[in-house]
Amino acid sequence: MREIWTEQRKLEIWLQIELLATQALVKEGIVPAKDFAIMKAKAAFNIERCKELERTLNHDVIAFTTCVAEYINDPASRWFHFGLTSSDVLDTAFAVQMTQSADILIEDVKQLRAVIAKKANEHKFTPCIGRSHGIHAEPTTMGLTFARFYAEMARNRTRLIAARAEIATGAISGAVGTFANIDPSVEEHVCAQLGLTPEPISTQVIPRDRHAMYFAVLAVIASSIENVAIEIRHMQRTEVLEAEEFFSPGQKGSSAMPHKRNPVLSENLTGLARLVRMSVIPALENVALWHERDISHSSVERAIGPDTTITLDFALHRLGGLVEKLVIYPENMLKNMNKFRGLVMSQRVLLALTQAGVSREDSYRLVQRNAMKVWEHGADFKTELLADPEVTAALSPAEIEEKFDIGYHTKHVDTIFKRVFGA
Amino acid sequence: MREIWTEQRKLEIWLQIELLATQALVKEGIVPAKDFAIMKAKAAFNIERCKELERTLNHDVIAFTTCVAEYINDPASRWFHFGLTSSDVLDTAFAVQMTQSADILIEDVKQLRAVIAKKANEHKFTPCIGRSHGIHAEPTTMGLTFARFYAEMARNRTRLIAARAEIATGAISGAVGTFANIDPSVEEHVCAQLGLTPEPISTQVIPRDRHAMYFAVLAVIASSIENVAIEIRHMQRTEVLEAEEFFSPGQKGSSAMPHKRNPVLSENLTGLARLVRMSVIPALENVALWHERDISHSSVERAIGPDTTITLDFALHRLGGLVEKLVIYPENMLKNMNKFRGLVMSQRVLLALTQAGVSREDSYRLVQRNAMKVWEHGADFKTELLADPEVTAALSPAEIEEKFDIGYHTKHVDTIFKRVFGA
Amino acid sequence: MREIWTEQRKLEIWLQIELLATQALVKEGIVPAKDFAIMKAKAAFNIERCKELERTLNHDVIAFTTCVAEYINDPASRWFHFGLTSSDVLDTAFAVQMTQSADILIEDVKQLRAVIAKKANEHKFTPCIGRSHGIHAEPTTMGLTFARFYAEMARNRTRLIAARAEIATGAISGAVGTFANIDPSVEEHVCAQLGLTPEPISTQVIPRDRHAMYFAVLAVIASSIENVAIEIRHMQRTEVLEAEEFFSPGQKGSSAMPHKRNPVLSENLTGLARLVRMSVIPALENVALWHERDISHSSVERAIGPDTTITLDFALHRLGGLVEKLVIYPENMLKNMNKFRGLVMSQRVLLALTQAGVSREDSYRLVQRNAMKVWEHGADFKTELLADPEVTAALSPAEIEEKFDIGYHTKHVDTIFKRVFGA
Amino acid sequence: MREIWTEQRKLEIWLQIELLATQALVKEGIVPAKDFAIMKAKAAFNIERCKELERTLNHDVIAFTTCVAEYINDPASRWFHFGLTSSDVLDTAFAVQMTQSADILIEDVKQLRAVIAKKANEHKFTPCIGRSHGIHAEPTTMGLTFARFYAEMARNRTRLIAARAEIATGAISGAVGTFANIDPSVEEHVCAQLGLTPEPISTQVIPRDRHAMYFAVLAVIASSIENVAIEIRHMQRTEVLEAEEFFSPGQKGSSAMPHKRNPVLSENLTGLARLVRMSVIPALENVALWHERDISHSSVERAIGPDTTITLDFALHRLGGLVEKLVIYPENMLKNMNKFRGLVMSQRVLLALTQAGVSREDSYRLVQRNAMKVWEHGADFKTELLADPEVTAALSPAEIEEKFDIGYHTKHVDTIFKRVFGA
Repeated sequence: MREIWTEQRKLEIWLQIELLATQALVKEGIVPAKDFAIMKAKAAFNIERCKELERTLNHDVIAFTTCVAEYINDPASRWFHFGLTSSDVLDTAFAVQMTQSADILIEDVKQLRAVIAKKANEHKFTPCIGRSHGIHAEPTTMGLTFARFYAEMARNRTRLIAARAEIATGAISGAVGTFANIDPSVEEHVCAQLGLTPEPISTQVIPRDRHAMYFAVLAVIASSIENVAIEIRHMQRTEVLEAEEFFSPGQKGSSAMPHKRNPVLSENLTGLARLVRMSVIPALENVALWHERDISHSSVERAIGPDTTITLDFALHRLGGLVEKLVIYPENMLKNMNKFRGLVMSQRVLLALTQAGVSREDSYRLVQRNAMKVWEHGADFKTELLADPEVTAALSPAEIEEKFDIGYHTKHVDTIFKRVFGA
Repeated sequence: MREIWTEQRKLEIWLQIELLATQALVKEGIVPAKDFAIMKAKAAFNIERCKELERTLNHDVIAFTTCVAEYINDPASRWFHFGLTSSDVLDTAFAVQMTQSADILIEDVKQLRAVIAKKANEHKFTPCIGRSHGIHAEPTTMGLTFARFYAEMARNRTRLIAARAEIATGAISGAVGTFANIDPSVEEHVCAQLGLTPEPISTQVIPRDRHAMYFAVLAVIASSIENVAIEIRHMQRTEVLEAEEFFSPGQKGSSAMPHKRNPVLSENLTGLARLVRMSVIPALENVALWHERDISHSSVERAIGPDTTITLDFALHRLGGLVEKLVIYPENMLKNMNKFRGLVMSQRVLLALTQAGVSREDSYRLVQRNAMKVWEHGADFKTELLADPEVTAALSPAEIEEKFDIGYHTKHVDTIFKRVFGA
Repeated sequence: MREIWTEQRKLEIWLQIELLATQALVKEGIVPAKDFAIMKAKAAFNIERCKELERTLNHDVIAFTTCVAEYINDPASRWFHFGLTSSDVLDTAFAVQMTQSADILIEDVKQLRAVIAKKANEHKFTPCIGRSHGIHAEPTTMGLTFARFYAEMARNRTRLIAARAEIATGAISGAVGTFANIDPSVEEHVCAQLGLTPEPISTQVIPRDRHAMYFAVLAVIASSIENVAIEIRHMQRTEVLEAEEFFSPGQKGSSAMPHKRNPVLSENLTGLARLVRMSVIPALENVALWHERDISHSSVERAIGPDTTITLDFALHRLGGLVEKLVIYPENMLKNMNKFRGLVMSQRVLLALTQAGVSREDSYRLVQRNAMKVWEHGADFKTELLADPEVTAALSPAEIEEKFDIGYHTKHVDTIFKRVFGA
Repeated sequence: MREIWTEQRKLEIWLQIELLATQALVKEGIVPAKDFAIMKAKAAFNIERCKELERTLNHDVIAFTTCVAEYINDPASRWFHFGLTSSDVLDTAFAVQMTQSADILIEDVKQLRAVIAKKANEHKFTPCIGRSHGIHAEPTTMGLTFARFYAEMARNRTRLIAARAEIATGAISGAVGTFANIDPSVEEHVCAQLGLTPEPISTQVIPRDRHAMYFAVLAVIASSIENVAIEIRHMQRTEVLEAEEFFSPGQKGSSAMPHKRNPVLSENLTGLARLVRMSVIPALENVALWHERDISHSSVERAIGPDTTITLDFALHRLGGLVEKLVIYPENMLKNMNKFRGLVMSQRVLLALTQAGVSREDSYRLVQRNAMKVWEHGADFKTELLADPEVTAALSPAEIEEKFDIGYHTKHVDTIFKRVFGA
């Protein structure tokens, strides 16, 4: 990802665009084929020379064209950048970089999904307690947790593909987008060769609502990463300890406390998510440029273009590695689930009472009465229910017993996996 | 839009969902048809009673079900909310509200586009100066400005449709999303009746990356509105005065300065855009809920759900009215264009010199030399060129004359309109 | 807080400002004392009439002055609003509202601090485990946790006082801030009466960097609230259960699971923090108004002015009540601390070994070796150390024993409390 | 500013803190003076070696202490980092960097204010039109515009000083902030030597509300920069042209249009403001760390610490240079002011009519009637007034004439300058 955003790569794309545009002008009969042949053979650039020229000229694209003209060193060089405006080159090149970044991110998400899918299947039926508000609710399976991350990343893939299409347009339309000095066919040729769509209507620049949408999608993906990271951080808490980040031999958790194994990768991912997200506001502020363009967006994009895509690429890789090596402790999951003995089955008992003809309000009262004994005095829920005459008046001991079967909670895991992973 | 977000409407949707779920349970053979008939006939609610119950129960959904049970006033009421978790109702109802909001916004954008298209066609060939950096660049037409707003709003329509699909899912999957106490067929039935898709995998709640994406799209649309608003504000500046917001008889621009006609609607829209945009950050922060859910997202959504959609709906309407009645001054456009006499044709002359065999650097020097006389001393560009022997050595007077034809700049307007509006 | 932001209150402040300004003009010899007496006696307004007038006039302040003039119903009414610009009234009134809001928030923070101080002192020496990365680190006390929240809120108080000063300025300086039509003495008089400072230099409006700073401070306070809320949410997790939000009799935690007691208040506060924070971006975007003002800030402030202060006021109250009634479980704190038997004392042992002359690297190795037995096999740390000949070669059994004294960790609690709460 | 944030500088500060802490331990009688002398003489580090060690150890501070121990190469090295936790070093070092950054920014603002003050005095009485809503309002002076930027930057100086105090605290308080293994006197010694205040109560880290406040202040300053930049961009618009950024000989405004002189610096500053502002949200999200710390803030701060301070430093310098060299066109200011002949004096006439006994409503009607002739038909306002019998019934020709004196609008400039710049 870093390579896409180097100065060298940027200028290579500029050169490619300039030559493609001139090639189109040959077809148009404006540039002599012979001159183009000379240009193509000799056109080159040198970053240091470009920088030197920019110090005098105060204009990056003019510095670049001047530098290339020096290399061409032939009257043919007058056709270089002919009829183009700087932004034709700048914006189309930025589109190439953004599109290539999107391609990498799409691949990252694909790899991450593969890793998550593997964990989901491994732990498809590993029981653990589901929690709402951080409080035990009802049993679920670890596989379902991974399955929902998988589904979330599937949505992110769809969003990334849409975001890629948003910014995969080029514009070679001149100073204010009228094609006054350059025929639309040049734009078509350049875009076709670069795998871009011609921007239907541009001004001097490609409209920035496209880029805002792109960065918004990256921000959503970052939030999904945070979602997974927070889950892992919770699971690794000392009191929970249902999973741990892999701790390599030789790694030190703390300079002071040798026993510590900290979820530093997932905490790091939480921070990286904040970094990626922060670009969404400036990207939105970039949309309302003045008239046919002002250049306020440029400094913003020079920073968030590379920073945000590189950070997200890094974060997706880091998350992939983290999930792949994540150490999971099924026995701790069971131990946690039974912390309040049998209590997590309370809703099932509530429904059974209702079905047995007890009013909803009475059922609720009966269940809560026994639940509180478990919660406050460490009693066993099933034992309490069996000893409560109002309960046993409605449900037989066997019926009560049956309510504590874990299989009841996992019976639709297959259905859900089919929805998420297909047949 | 406001109606969607009233307490009354919300509870109506809750009731609808509850009854649809019970209806599905009849099919499942769990609820007797007779009991459902009683429920359906008598189920009702009263906002005041719900509020009263909530003060004791501290739980909005339980207050609601209790209230409805009072209306049913029959043992059949025990099937009301049977097997459901509060979030099944809350989240699915929120999806209905968000989807209906999206429908209104899609219609808003459609109407706005119609108004913009009309203006674009009216002023398709109204010449005006294109500006980059707020500085005159080259001629363009007013129609192209409207055409690009049209194209931007077309993209927004596409985004809204995608955003609608993002949040048009319902979930009736129980306390932690396992369908332990409620068959997936109930979810399918309820969603089908409400025009929603069943969420492939939910926890207690529908995943919030969906909502984040939705609000991100609203934020982009708001930025597009700002884009149009800023353009109008610039056009109405006293020194520019190429357009004015309609000023109704009786309206007062200033309590102190009777001559003032201020672009207050477009300034207002600029502020509204900021308000809509601000919801994107909390919506992103809502994604990483703890485990199977925490309720931190709820207070956020209770505010930004109605506020953001209502503000955006209002802004889209306001913008439509503003564009529709916008007073445009073509004569001022011409006057502005000629402020620096002929200077806006400079690039064309530059290219003509290059095509006539002058090197790019010399062409640039020749044009800049004459341009500076116009810029600094108010000279007429064409006159200066005709008097410059180095220029006339390359271009004949007739050739120079021809470079000042406005038609040169509008020759591709048809092409662009075809791209934007179709054949 | 809501009262400050009612339409009624706003217009009352407007009227007060208008009358104070006219009073100053009497002193200046411009308005006859007799006319002012008439105005003062009869000036009044009616919200409905104002709204009706605004529908025609499209200008809120002119509608207001017209309405008041109707009440005055005397030629003296021509002095009403004399020499003023709408913004003189609007901005000064907004300053009054913002200042009063700040006063309430300062009082809120004061009350919250009192509640937190009480808890801090109650649990000054209640031992609990300190955690970094969610992993047990070393012992600390619950009182220190409350003490740091107290210190954080003390900083917030200082910030609020500074923020109040930022926005406690009024401006009566005319259409572009030149005092062309109104003497600076009027501004001085009005501000003195309202407890405001005259804005040293205004344009048509008070500069918006002041308001941006104000909302930024509210955003920081919101984040502090979130900080406390997250701590409580963690403490209430089923596996941790070191504290619980007060659960009133009759309250229902879940419509489905009768045993549930959820930290819904602190989760709600987490969401409210997001809502308060979101206003900081539009407030910053409001700073760069065009020239002597544009009105884009107005719609933003009409929303975030009341919404943000009301939400923060509510959140501070809610947090106060929550902390006050928070149920704390010291026995669970001890139980959690000893989950990994003695392990939390590892750093102390490490340092003792170093002090006994063992190299840092060897000390680390010795401690980690024994720590891992505790971590992985549930061993008792002290027992393992006493059985490790390399350890006992450096430390006597009595020395090892002494390292497990909790008093070691609490010996500076008094020092810290003195720093935070004073002598 | 970049130097503060190099890896080299960071590790130098780490070393300084470690040695200061050990020095304090000598005073405490824990570390032998002889050992400290050895350490001090030989302690050094090497960035490459640190990085190499970090690859195995996965912990930056342990890698650093190991590297330094290698340099010391003596049993005395066991006292290096004795009793410290990584964060003691990390956070205190970060405080040093943030404080030094604040010092530079304070100096930047000072220099900027000097430049602005100079311009303000040069143009103290240069008349120009004040504008609200982009529409001509009443005359003002260019000096007042600079004076308000000066006052805004004065506020920013005060804010920066407060922000500096916010983050100028150090903490050497151990793993969870209890000073269990390190006496508070060490913290006092280290902080005193570094010019920091001891953090009254820390956990493992310094509380992050301090840093959030710091970045919020930078965000406000960035918005002030944008405020100035937007003003300049407006002044340089082709139709306004009241000022221009300095255009150096050799500079090229456009690759295509040789006459163009674009306000690229102020547009760039507008973009930089967005970049600085974006850090405020992640800084706020960093406040609510889990328990005694999690490390999510770290990746955020590693990015926004340097990026935001460096960008703001650069922007303040750029703005200083821009204002210093700004070319101002007083004659264009006059020309613009008179675009609508005399109209900007309308409020004054309105007030004069009122003072002459005409009711406010009639005065308004009379002024607007004549104003509209100027606005719509290019008439001269004074001429129209003199020809309007209803006006001349109230005001004599001499009185009307006198209303068009510019001195009326500048009579309080001295007063305002005294407020802003002092006596």
